[in-house]
Amino acid sequence: MSKTFNRLLRGPLSRAYSSPVTSSCSRRIYSATTVRTAAASPVPFRPLTTTTTTNRIPQKPPTRWIWKKVGAAVLAGSIVVAAVFEWKDAHAEAHPANRYIRLSEVERHGQTSDRKWVTKGKRVYDITEWIEVHPGGPVILQAVGGCIDRYWDIFSVHKKQDVYDILEQYFIGEVDPRDLVDGKVPADKVEDPFVLDPKRDPRLLQHTQQPCNAETPSQSLGSFITPNGVFFVRNHFWVPKIDEKAHVLHVELSDGTAKAYSLADLKSKFEPFSITATLQCTGNRRKHMSENAKPASGLPWNVGAISNTMWTGVRLRDVLEDAGYSRDGDVDDNVRHVHLVGAEAYCGSIPISKAVDPHGDVMLAYEMGGKPLPRDHGYPLRALIPGHTAARSVKWLERVTLSEDESPSQWQQKDYKCFGPNKEAKDVDWSTAPAIQETPVQSAITEVGVISGDSRKGRAELSRYGMKEDAIRVKGYAFSGGGRSIIRVDISADDGKTWSQADLHQDETKGHRSWSWKKWEWVVPKAEAGRVFVVKAVDECYNSQPESYDAQWNFRGNLTTAWHRAEHSEDDQNVGASQEQSWLGRTLGRLSL
Amino acid sequence: MSKTFNRLLRGPLSRAYSSPVTSSCSRRIYSATTVRTAAASPVPFRPLTTTTTTNRIPQKPPTRWIWKKVGAAVLAGSIVVAAVFEWKDAHAEAHPANRYIRLSEVERHGQTSDRKWVTKGKRVYDITEWIEVHPGGPVILQAVGGCIDRYWDIFSVHKKQDVYDILEQYFIGEVDPRDLVDGKVPADKVEDPFVLDPKRDPRLLQHTQQPCNAETPSQSLGSFITPNGVFFVRNHFWVPKIDEKAHVLHVELSDGTAKAYSLADLKSKFEPFSITATLQCTGNRRKHMSENAKPASGLPWNVGAISNTMWTGVRLRDVLEDAGYSRDGDVDDNVRHVHLVGAEAYCGSIPISKAVDPHGDVMLAYEMGGKPLPRDHGYPLRALIPGHTAARSVKWLERVTLSEDESPSQWQQKDYKCFGPNKEAKDVDWSTAPAIQETPVQSAITEVGVISGDSRKGRAELSRYGMKEDAIRVKGYAFSGGGRSIIRVDISADDGKTWSQADLHQDETKGHRSWSWKKWEWVVPKAEAGRVFVVKAVDECYNSQPESYDAQWNFRGNLTTAWHRAEHSEDDQNVGASQEQSWLGRTLGRLSL
Repeated sequence: MSKTFNRLLRGPLSRAYSSPVTSSCSRRIYSATTVRTAAASPVPFRPLTTTTTTNRIPQKPPTRWIWKKVGAAVLAGSIVVAAVFEWKDAHAEAHPANRYIRLSEVERHGQTSDRKWVTKGKRVYDITEWIEVHPGGPVILQAVGGCIDRYWDIFSVHKKQDVYDILEQYFIGEVDPRDLVDGKVPADKVEDPFVLDPKRDPRLLQHTQQPCNAETPSQSLGSFITPNGVFFVRNHFWVPKIDEKAHVLHVELSDGTAKAYSLADLKSKFEPFSITATLQCTGNRRKHMSENAKPASGLPWNVGAISNTMWTGVRLRDVLEDAGYSRDGDVDDNVRHVHLVGAEAYCGSIPISKAVDPHGDVMLAYEMGGKPLPRDHGYPLRALIPGHTAARSVKWLERVTLSEDESPSQWQQKDYKCFGPNKEAKDVDWSTAPAIQETPVQSAITEVGVISGDSRKGRAELSRYGMKEDAIRVKGYAFSGGGRSIIRVDISADDGKTWSQADLHQDETKGHRSWSWKKWEWVVPKAEAGRVFVVKAVDECYNSQPESYDAQWNFRGNLTTAWHRAEHSEDDQNVGASQEQSWLGRTLGRLSL
Repeated sequence: MSKTFNRLLRGPLSRAYSSPVTSSCSRRIYSATTVRTAAASPVPFRPLTTTTTTNRIPQKPPTRWIWKKVGAAVLAGSIVVAAVFEWKDAHAEAHPANRYIRLSEVERHGQTSDRKWVTKGKRVYDITEWIEVHPGGPVILQAVGGCIDRYWDIFSVHKKQDVYDILEQYFIGEVDPRDLVDGKVPADKVEDPFVLDPKRDPRLLQHTQQPCNAETPSQSLGSFITPNGVFFVRNHFWVPKIDEKAHVLHVELSDGTAKAYSLADLKSKFEPFSITATLQCTGNRRKHMSENAKPASGLPWNVGAISNTMWTGVRLRDVLEDAGYSRDGDVDDNVRHVHLVGAEAYCGSIPISKAVDPHGDVMLAYEMGGKPLPRDHGYPLRALIPGHTAARSVKWLERVTLSEDESPSQWQQKDYKCFGPNKEAKDVDWSTAPAIQETPVQSAITEVGVISGDSRKGRAELSRYGMKEDAIRVKGYAFSGGGRSIIRVDISADDGKTWSQADLHQDETKGHRSWSWKKWEWVVPKAEAGRVFVVKAVDECYNSQPESYDAQWNFRGNLTTAWHRAEHSEDDQNVGASQEQSWLGRTLGRLSL
């Protein structure tokens, strides 16, 4: 069924498609199905209100619904019953109910068919009409011609009775028993959306494989430019398989007018530019928050959900202007946000002010580290929003839409926000916190190593630092959002009682502001160093990091920036690691020079 | 001698005038006098290198200098001696040496005279030639026709032998004994630069009177708009007395071309606009840092070196464009900073990117709180750099100069910077830290009061908060630089163990970004509250305040933003104050309602 991984069919640029299948979008699903859940309770029956529910009647409704329907029919009398049967007769030929359907027939009703079918378990549905009003947009097309179960495992918002009830309206039959094995659709016939994900560099530290979430290993955090293969990967879903030549970017203005650009169009019409920029996952260092305060939800990223490279592409502001958006003069007051929609379902938005800022360097990027984007990083086109949390740099970019409002996606409205340390998820009104855009000042230790005079190499290193006795070298990165440069890194070898300043590397950056991390190192005589090293950075606005994980804790574990501690183990002069950084020890191994 | 307070004469827009009398500028003084200090030491004699020292010979040089001169004359032989005496004869008529001079004659050699004299102690100097090359610029004109001692008390950089030596070159005589009282120039003849300072609102909490440095009282910190009379005052010198009709703003481009604007020009040629903006002194809350970590240098500002109001003026970017600076298209790469020079001597600079940012709202302001600027706040014209530390909003603005470099003034190169907690002034290379521009996230408690049900007013208040029992109400402000809005204020009644969120006031702001502070309040049942309240704020980039004063300490005590604590005293239900906020108690008095 790999054909479902071919290039997605593109529907009209309808606003109905701007929301992916998200929990925020699910409110629309609830509103369409209020009737059914209400009908099962003693609440008075209310009329159906959506087109999806008025032009279809479920062929094999769930039991509760039958009883309700029966009750309603009895109450309404024979006229209603007759009308229902009349409607059923009219549609019987198109979707003969209760018949057995071969899986090969389901496959024929894929993305290129007029009628689009899916299976769920052993049941077959014709969801052609649902697609048009699907709150999650055209991503549902991924599943047609095959099994929808795997997708609903990923988009778990569907796993509710309300949604099951909607699907049941589109029931057309059951899978033919001849295609079943042990009474089930066989595993090789169940869609695996991840089957075409790319192979990854084995050095990446994988938290999850489906979707891929993997951090950069500490060895690779040492360089200013992160090699493409070990650039951290944060995927929310599968990796879309996109043909570069067929790829089209749709740019839609607030009045609904749209313009389409192929990748060749972008490269030929607009002046390319390059910047160096750091991307940092909102959850970077969540592990430290969970371990030092209390558990936060989300992947337990250590210090490696951050990487830096050179990006090449064209300016979003140039493309918006070409598409008809006046960025300077007669600005459209209705436009406050730019929605960025990816091919797999993910989307988000940034403020228009960032998008058109001549010094904002917002890019439609097609190269990374001097090469075409790797598939894991958005091939063939992604947004690159320097200075903002990486969640806004939407990969596999297919659509850019100007809007008065922020993206309604859960990644804009929910996941990437922080609340106070006293708040749990159940307590919050999500709308009261802003979506994370620019990020706060951050720093972390990525390496603690002994430079020993026992070896010639070690003595050469010590000499380079003007030292004669064994020393400890601590390395790391510091970074602040909004292009605010790092001006100072304070480091302590006595758990924060006294401080020194690390040496900041003078790596060459490109771009209007400081979009790249600052690498730093500090060397201290081993005899003077304690066991625990602590780091905190200061950016050009003199913002600094908070000390306490407890006071910064938020239930989503976002933007962990409390002082990072790493421990130096005296054991055999190896580089050890503190509790909060245990993988560092495993990864670094013996660093004694 | 109040005539010296009249409008300053304006010299040519020479670059030689762009530096005030500062320690950074004093390096130029040193270079001109190296010869003399070297001559007194065993270092070989070197030739004079400046015009000031080649066209004048001191009439009554200091003793050390005489011996050197004698030695040099002996060595050089009679030809040199003859040349010196020939030169002296030629100038004898213009400045008869060793004569007694009446103070009335000194007064006649003021700003309107061709020759400009000053006294220092009992000695009289004709500094006409020095003025042209004075590193501090035309501010020296303030003193001519009178006594320079008082100014050198203020500009203490002059109190060095090198500078005294320069002055001695211009000696022309001594004050006539008939004008002396007890062998001194009488006090009423000694210039007081502050004599024409305006009268201040007695509610202002004055740290110093000459110059005036006074903070807003806590009662007035309660309102979103600070009344003009109690807006905090941070003066570095006296308040210039400027005639609005005669005032001229000079705008000088990087190629030296300049344009002059009267206030009427500015008002008629450019579109006025208004914004609300908070100004915060770089030293706000220094008192807390000094008391909680260790003493820092500078005035011990409490929580009141911050105020907010509405400002009206014209856009600096519009004026720069009118003066010939191309802000969008063919930008002058030589321009990276905009110098802002005040009438009294103070100056600073901001990056050109801020000056021309269409959303930066940088203003040449002539109104404050709907009225002409009060004299203490820059009448008739000041710079207003919203989102930046107040030190860049230069008052009594006379000159705007585009430059490749930052202002060389000590307020740009030294005073307003921060270094690590391990650094003392003697340790630092000032050039290694950036001048403070945008400021970090800040918050403070300005009021802690009991709302008691004992009175009708108290019961009404409690009812407004839906409470029946006595409560504690805590109020304060939060603010972040760069127009970053405050999104959350966390407050704790148990010294930071647990947190709640304060209610943020929805005051109406004007401007492209959030230039104004956010007022907040929090009400907690008295029975649930502890003794110490702690506050920390979060801005839209999710930057938060550091916890520890020790870790933030810097020897200048700048940008104190560590968590602010205020204590509630149980004593007789009065509002008390913690040690770090002792004036709050004195000021607030009894707040029990």
